[in-house]
Amino acid sequence: MKNEQLIKQLGLEVRRRRLDSGLSQEEFAEISGLHRTYVSGIERGDRNPTIDIVFQIAQALRCSPADLFGGDEE
Amino acid sequence: MKNEQLIKQLGLEVRRRRLDSGLSQEEFAEISGLHRTYVSGIERGDRNPTIDIVFQIAQALRCSPADLFGGDEE
Repeated sequence: MKNEQLIKQLGLEVRRRRLDSGLSQEEFAEISGLHRTYVSGIERGDRNPTIDIVFQIAQALRCSPADLFGGDEE
Repeated sequence: MKNEQLIKQLGLEVRRRRLDSGLSQEEFAEISGLHRTYVSGIERGDRNPTIDIVFQIAQALRCSPADLFGGDEE
């Protein structure tokens, strides 16, 4: 799978888990310490975050970094 | 776990899988399309790569991105 597709897939997973947590983008931005527009860009697959940001997102979603890459579907 | 520890853990996992594949850092750098010193920095946990680089590394190691974050140990 191409990198762009993987980045889009990550964004969809972040969005899915955020919604499952009942959080708006504003609430999630506050919890994760990221700007709302950055969260929106990640969910659309328009950003290429560094892994420390991915760790920050996983922590805010109370999951492991591996979970964000489909790690729990294996 | 703090981000620095997670980044160090990722580096150790990349190193472990590279050695398991019988690849030197030079060979792995060539396969992954990254510079050898960058590979060395990632393995030491001194770099904060963007996720597209992490995908590139996973592809070169023939594993999933989740595997690099301990995804296959669950």
